[in-house]
Amino acid sequence: MMFADFDAIAAFAATAPQFDEAAAAAARARQNALTKPPGSLGRLEDIAVFFAGWRGPDVGQAQALVFAGNHGVCAQGVSPYPQAVTAQMVANFAHGGAAINQLCRVAGADLGVMALELDRPTQDFTQGPAMTVAETLEAINRGAAAVDPDADVLILGEMGIGNSTIAAALAAALFGGAAAEWVGPGTGSDAAGMARKADVIERGLALHRDAAGLAILAALGGREQAAICGAVLAARGLRIPVLLDGFICTAAAAALHAVSPGLLDHCLIGHASAEPGHRKLIAALGKRAVLDFDMRLGEGSGAALALNIVRAALACHNGMATFGEAGVSEA
Amino acid sequence: MMFADFDAIAAFAATAPQFDEAAAAAARARQNALTKPPGSLGRLEDIAVFFAGWRGPDVGQAQALVFAGNHGVCAQGVSPYPQAVTAQMVANFAHGGAAINQLCRVAGADLGVMALELDRPTQDFTQGPAMTVAETLEAINRGAAAVDPDADVLILGEMGIGNSTIAAALAAALFGGAAAEWVGPGTGSDAAGMARKADVIERGLALHRDAAGLAILAALGGREQAAICGAVLAARGLRIPVLLDGFICTAAAAALHAVSPGLLDHCLIGHASAEPGHRKLIAALGKRAVLDFDMRLGEGSGAALALNIVRAALACHNGMATFGEAGVSEA
Repeated sequence: MMFADFDAIAAFAATAPQFDEAAAAAARARQNALTKPPGSLGRLEDIAVFFAGWRGPDVGQAQALVFAGNHGVCAQGVSPYPQAVTAQMVANFAHGGAAINQLCRVAGADLGVMALELDRPTQDFTQGPAMTVAETLEAINRGAAAVDPDADVLILGEMGIGNSTIAAALAAALFGGAAAEWVGPGTGSDAAGMARKADVIERGLALHRDAAGLAILAALGGREQAAICGAVLAARGLRIPVLLDGFICTAAAAALHAVSPGLLDHCLIGHASAEPGHRKLIAALGKRAVLDFDMRLGEGSGAALALNIVRAALACHNGMATFGEAGVSEA
Repeated sequence: MMFADFDAIAAFAATAPQFDEAAAAAARARQNALTKPPGSLGRLEDIAVFFAGWRGPDVGQAQALVFAGNHGVCAQGVSPYPQAVTAQMVANFAHGGAAINQLCRVAGADLGVMALELDRPTQDFTQGPAMTVAETLEAINRGAAAVDPDADVLILGEMGIGNSTIAAALAAALFGGAAAEWVGPGTGSDAAGMARKADVIERGLALHRDAAGLAILAALGGREQAAICGAVLAARGLRIPVLLDGFICTAAAAALHAVSPGLLDHCLIGHASAEPGHRKLIAALGKRAVLDFDMRLGEGSGAALALNIVRAALACHNGMATFGEAGVSEA
């Protein structure tokens, strides 16, 4: 899947695969025949039906993709960490030392990390568009190309010093509201740091007030955000359900929601982050998170954790006996 | 571990192993050195510290124990399912067809099922004490003996037609309030069924109003409830952390809380059940559930699901690199 321009993405939205209602109804019927009171597995049943309607209720191969990028807006002092940490953490991923490595191992996901021109940060969005349209499309297409067609579920995550500012800027531009309503501590900003982030974002919003749709992604986003959009699109084309991670990952995907709300129908939100803007964003997308663990790490960590729940849900769906098979009396 | 009388349990409470604050502090210090913003793994960090303080932050072997019992109070029409389902579900567990089988396989737990004299239900608690003291102690001791000393975590669950009525009766007797405040649909009672349950419980509470402490367990409980208490006690003696399941499992363990609130310090609540009394009960115990998935199945299903989270928490704790090891710059 390659997109030559933003219009091609809008065109894809009009023809993208849709949820298979018949497969979902069959899965719901099976759930009601399994040896348990109907509905008693709660949200595990909903997850099984969701997978049935997109790809089939089974996860053999799980792919996790973490995209990393650097941001010119760091020049405005929006993060307490030096920008070099982005590359240092990519090295940590490569050596298996990060949280996402452990979480993928436990949940049985193959982790791929794509560092997107870390030595060439995007432009400072208070000075001009963060990316050109060509740069945005390149990152979208790199993200799309990274998706394994054999995966049965795709976990998405990100790494990029300064990118909680990017996320808050995208959320404010896409859904409105003052920057301060979307800003949180990120990796650890104090009150002064958060005020600085909000001021930086307000200046960016004012400069790019005429941007709409994917132009917002170009103006205020970053390469890892664009790559996340590309991966979401490719997964949709392949009917692969997606587990989005926290605030930054969800804000990136929200750029597709602006193109067409249905473009995120195959996506679950893996967890509700402790970053305060995330709950607001989840509500704006009409979604509900799978997990809620006060996590705020990124890297795809909350989405990888949620894969354990998906595996459990599908194991019940496929492995349980029906009342008839087990000779258990019904109510 | 064998208890000759209820006094022996009170004596155990006074000498039981306690949370190791030094080990927990060391685990917290390690968490703060790992390659992530401090606190950013949220409740996963708390779980790792909890395990560090009880047994050490590692789960090799996980044991799940499901206790099954039958209840004389079913004569009062408290469940839409016939009592024969208890034994039928025990057979389903043995053949691997139930939810708990799938959930234990996914989470890596060894499942043991103990059917407690299913052909000899307890007495109807509206007519007299459900169990004699001797019967109660026998079930407590059987539960205690079932705990594997080599387990690093113990998942507890239950099966017993009618036992959501038992749970509501225990909760009301232990924590007060009208029966109707603790009654829920259980496996699927309608409003009339719930009113019947509440009436049955009120009659039981009136008959046994003088019972206190473990005498409440004997008067209103059942064999699987007593066995759960025994397993919780044995696990405490062995410093094995426990994952309690939903309303019925938690109400059983709450009988130990009445002996000494600290007796449940080594227990986490695996999930908050959709059975409405469970949230009230969790609050009364001063606990917070690990998961919240609208489940209401029992069998240990919510606790087994939570084991996935525990494994993820401990994998991060043990497998992540520190800032120093990874050469990542700090804030």
